[in-house]
Amino acid sequence: MAVSPSLKTPLTGSGLRRYLPFLNWLVHYRRADLPSDLVAGLVTAIMLIPQSMAYAQLAGLPPQIGLYASVAPLAVYALLGTSGQLSVGPVAITSLAVFAGVSAFAEPGSPRYLELVLLLAFIVGMVKLLLGVLRLGFLMNFVSHPVLAGFTSASALIIAAGQLKYLLGYRIEGERFHEVVLSAISGASQTNPATLAVGLGSMILLLLFRFRLKPFLQQRTRLPSAAVTLIVSGAPLLTVLLGILAAWLWRLNETAGVRVVGAIPQGFAPFTLPSLSIADAQALMPTALTIVFISVVESIAVARALASKRRKAIDPDQELVALGAANVTASITGGYPVTGGFARSVVNDQAGAVTGLASLVTAASIGVIVLWFTPLFYDLPQAVLAATVIVAVLSLFKPGEALRIWRMNRTDALTWGVTFVVVLLAGIEAGILTGVVFSLILFLWRTSRPHIAIVGRVGQSEHFRNVLRHRVQTCPHVVAVRVDESLYFANTRYLEDTLLRIVAGRPEVKHLVLIGSAINFIDASAMETLESLMHELRAAGVELHLADIKGPVMDQLQRAGFIAHLGAERVYLSAHQAMQALDCG
Amino acid sequence: MAVSPSLKTPLTGSGLRRYLPFLNWLVHYRRADLPSDLVAGLVTAIMLIPQSMAYAQLAGLPPQIGLYASVAPLAVYALLGTSGQLSVGPVAITSLAVFAGVSAFAEPGSPRYLELVLLLAFIVGMVKLLLGVLRLGFLMNFVSHPVLAGFTSASALIIAAGQLKYLLGYRIEGERFHEVVLSAISGASQTNPATLAVGLGSMILLLLFRFRLKPFLQQRTRLPSAAVTLIVSGAPLLTVLLGILAAWLWRLNETAGVRVVGAIPQGFAPFTLPSLSIADAQALMPTALTIVFISVVESIAVARALASKRRKAIDPDQELVALGAANVTASITGGYPVTGGFARSVVNDQAGAVTGLASLVTAASIGVIVLWFTPLFYDLPQAVLAATVIVAVLSLFKPGEALRIWRMNRTDALTWGVTFVVVLLAGIEAGILTGVVFSLILFLWRTSRPHIAIVGRVGQSEHFRNVLRHRVQTCPHVVAVRVDESLYFANTRYLEDTLLRIVAGRPEVKHLVLIGSAINFIDASAMETLESLMHELRAAGVELHLADIKGPVMDQLQRAGFIAHLGAERVYLSAHQAMQALDCG
Repeated sequence: MAVSPSLKTPLTGSGLRRYLPFLNWLVHYRRADLPSDLVAGLVTAIMLIPQSMAYAQLAGLPPQIGLYASVAPLAVYALLGTSGQLSVGPVAITSLAVFAGVSAFAEPGSPRYLELVLLLAFIVGMVKLLLGVLRLGFLMNFVSHPVLAGFTSASALIIAAGQLKYLLGYRIEGERFHEVVLSAISGASQTNPATLAVGLGSMILLLLFRFRLKPFLQQRTRLPSAAVTLIVSGAPLLTVLLGILAAWLWRLNETAGVRVVGAIPQGFAPFTLPSLSIADAQALMPTALTIVFISVVESIAVARALASKRRKAIDPDQELVALGAANVTASITGGYPVTGGFARSVVNDQAGAVTGLASLVTAASIGVIVLWFTPLFYDLPQAVLAATVIVAVLSLFKPGEALRIWRMNRTDALTWGVTFVVVLLAGIEAGILTGVVFSLILFLWRTSRPHIAIVGRVGQSEHFRNVLRHRVQTCPHVVAVRVDESLYFANTRYLEDTLLRIVAGRPEVKHLVLIGSAINFIDASAMETLESLMHELRAAGVELHLADIKGPVMDQLQRAGFIAHLGAERVYLSAHQAMQALDCG
Repeated sequence: MAVSPSLKTPLTGSGLRRYLPFLNWLVHYRRADLPSDLVAGLVTAIMLIPQSMAYAQLAGLPPQIGLYASVAPLAVYALLGTSGQLSVGPVAITSLAVFAGVSAFAEPGSPRYLELVLLLAFIVGMVKLLLGVLRLGFLMNFVSHPVLAGFTSASALIIAAGQLKYLLGYRIEGERFHEVVLSAISGASQTNPATLAVGLGSMILLLLFRFRLKPFLQQRTRLPSAAVTLIVSGAPLLTVLLGILAAWLWRLNETAGVRVVGAIPQGFAPFTLPSLSIADAQALMPTALTIVFISVVESIAVARALASKRRKAIDPDQELVALGAANVTASITGGYPVTGGFARSVVNDQAGAVTGLASLVTAASIGVIVLWFTPLFYDLPQAVLAATVIVAVLSLFKPGEALRIWRMNRTDALTWGVTFVVVLLAGIEAGILTGVVFSLILFLWRTSRPHIAIVGRVGQSEHFRNVLRHRVQTCPHVVAVRVDESLYFANTRYLEDTLLRIVAGRPEVKHLVLIGSAINFIDASAMETLESLMHELRAAGVELHLADIKGPVMDQLQRAGFIAHLGAERVYLSAHQAMQALDCG
């Protein structure tokens, strides 16, 4: 069940270095890496500044909370994480989960709301730490790809719909996707034209940068890749600055009713411990677990992909510890739940990040903004931030994914569909839970009806193949059956039923040979079934024989005493030997 | 994933006969079977009469409810079930579940309690019907053997402890096992000596019959097996009659405070429809699902074992329909939830039951008792019924089972322990739920860390084996890896991690050959991982190759477009061919 020791290459050192990975890169820091780490850190900061504020708005929080969440948590991850490229901070889907989860208990923007968000970040952090310390990271594997894909596409739609109120400038009610869309349509006549113009203008600018300028720079110019990344990643900041300029020049707030961000406090929030209330913690637990699931799955997938490009590997359990510590830090420094984001990590990587120093530079740069430059954002229209969010989540909406999954596996496509629909209609927590349970049941169903084939001898060879697919020879008194699955509690009764049916339908059969070439393990339930199957077959005048059993499975059967009950002489190395011994050669 | 059509031998006929299985045996009834069916039916009735009353008492119900549950439901199952031997009626563990579940909402013995029990039987029946009609019987496979074994042993202890109040004659409080035991100890001085004498006397008589008389009759006499069964199965009825005689002769009720059953109404309860209240149904749902799980698992296992002895097979989905109809019948005829019991079915089988006619005879016999002979049981001491229950559940308490499971599989033994302890300390519903979830997580954990071996060539042969277990030859620029598990969402990330680690630790490797001889299917998540793995390996300068992929898996890879992305030339029929092509021959 476990990997052989020799496969475990130590990657992050041993002892102290394993738990404090920065000792690996900080102590032996190579001067040559300094310029690229510096550039990457600055480029990522330029991208993160508007995005952090936009995602905070999406989470129902004032913009500075997004900035706070992008400083200390980022630095903590840089010191404890095993990826030099992963960039941690607020991301779209986590922000949506915060809003959906916490707005059920407090009014967004209220002090109570902020208090609950800080507690939520604390819980998220503690759960991640616990999973990491207990090495329970494998639990994250409950979220299958179709669930995550369906969830992400539906979340993108919900996020985009939620931004409509900032883009159109009137109040839109509702929590579920369809409620929001209906409310937006019914109020369309109240659209604020100036707000819409600012929002659409920002979107067009952002889209031009991404879809026109980027390919142009890449194909028509000889700019180095880091420079292209800098220009394209700078698009949101440029848009924000243009938006501020326009709002300030034409006093859009007073004259045209364009809502702006307003006063952002300068400097950091004081350190605070979250107010721990059991009742609050219980209420927030479903949201916290949802955030843990989706953020860990995303963070680790991104970190792994970027590390392996450099032929490095990450330590998933240490990643959990680092992400947990980052979230606890977010909680005590006035931030909100953070995740290793896909978009920003790719930017960090493309801009040349080699070690965690890049993230330290990013954190320091945003820290400078928080300390001295927040008044700059007073006139920033909320519609510009909404445009940033919508363009960012556009790439998350991938209905084509369902089609791709459909081609891979019909039932998995159903999982995508179920998750997608439940997220849209019932919310993200219900959706992800439904998806996870659905895919587990599907997996059990799949393995609970394994492929079972009656096999016969191919010509005069020693090969045995499915009687339905090949021209093979069989004997009336022996039936040889191959089971293409490990035997465990969910398929053991199906196996028993099928074998008994085979025997019940063939009164002339005296011997049943079970071929175990595809059986990787046998659990206690299956062992029990094999025992009773043997007795039931014997009572019906049929002897059970085993052939081609793998070494570890044979050990299990020995230990359980099954071989002694069966008779060691009924166990054969191969189907060929079994058939010869049973006069079916 | 599904069995080949040729394996599905029709067992219960087709069309109407499939859904009304009695058409198979009633229409073509063989005269020769009549005597054994008659004897078996009577023997089973003799055993069932005291047991039905005892289990009703265990369920917190008056004794006649147990008798009602043994008439109409039994007949309905006989007509709709596919087993001629399964005997349906009240059983110990279901009765315990009824008591534990319903006593939380109503005082046992009150009209409200009975009303809820009837509703419970109705829900249990409808859920079973639904599972059968939708062919969802495979869901029952969620309950693994260790969960069921741990649950059964703990339940036996709870049941025995619950009978102490009838055996000792004083009030014992508490629901959990430890509460009951503590309460029994603290009140020990109030023991009613006459009650205890009657109870212990009954237990000794019953134990003598089972452990002394049965082996004696079998070994020392030449009585036919059916006669032995009759004598031994008659033990409870004999004990009951002796108990009644003693209580009547010495007026134990009035003179010595021995509580007796009292007046039992003669005749059947009028047909009633359960009072359907959504709130009640919701409250009872956890209990109903628990009962469905445990009773279906027991019934189908017993039916299957007895059928296969006669080289017949049962249809599990039709069994669900029959059990569902029996429970709905119990609900409208004043009974309570019924199950195909192990003990009574074995008696029915040993006494010679061939078809459902035996159960019809049993039902009719008990019907006669209900109509005319209930006054006979007025003086029956409750302590005698308690003794019957305790002796019956003794055989369910099997701590040795944990040891056996331990020898089969360490982690499965942990499942047994967790289920056992949680059932004792927190109750049967919490216990079974914990066990099911625990064993699912365990299974996912097990398959989420599959055995992955680096393999090399054995001598000059075409065989490739684990480098750690065999002396084999490898090449520095090629690494061949065998994965002993199907690839699905829970192990796909572990696979990716392990392969990337292998490559990260071997900078000289240029080719990775993935050997798929033990891969039975690949789901969409794993497909996705293979894609990204291929790209990640390529980015690191390593080419991925596939060898020894099974036909159906190859079809999946083709359909998903993976083979086109990988390059068909990188897919080899065998590891040998792959290694030759990569200059590692």
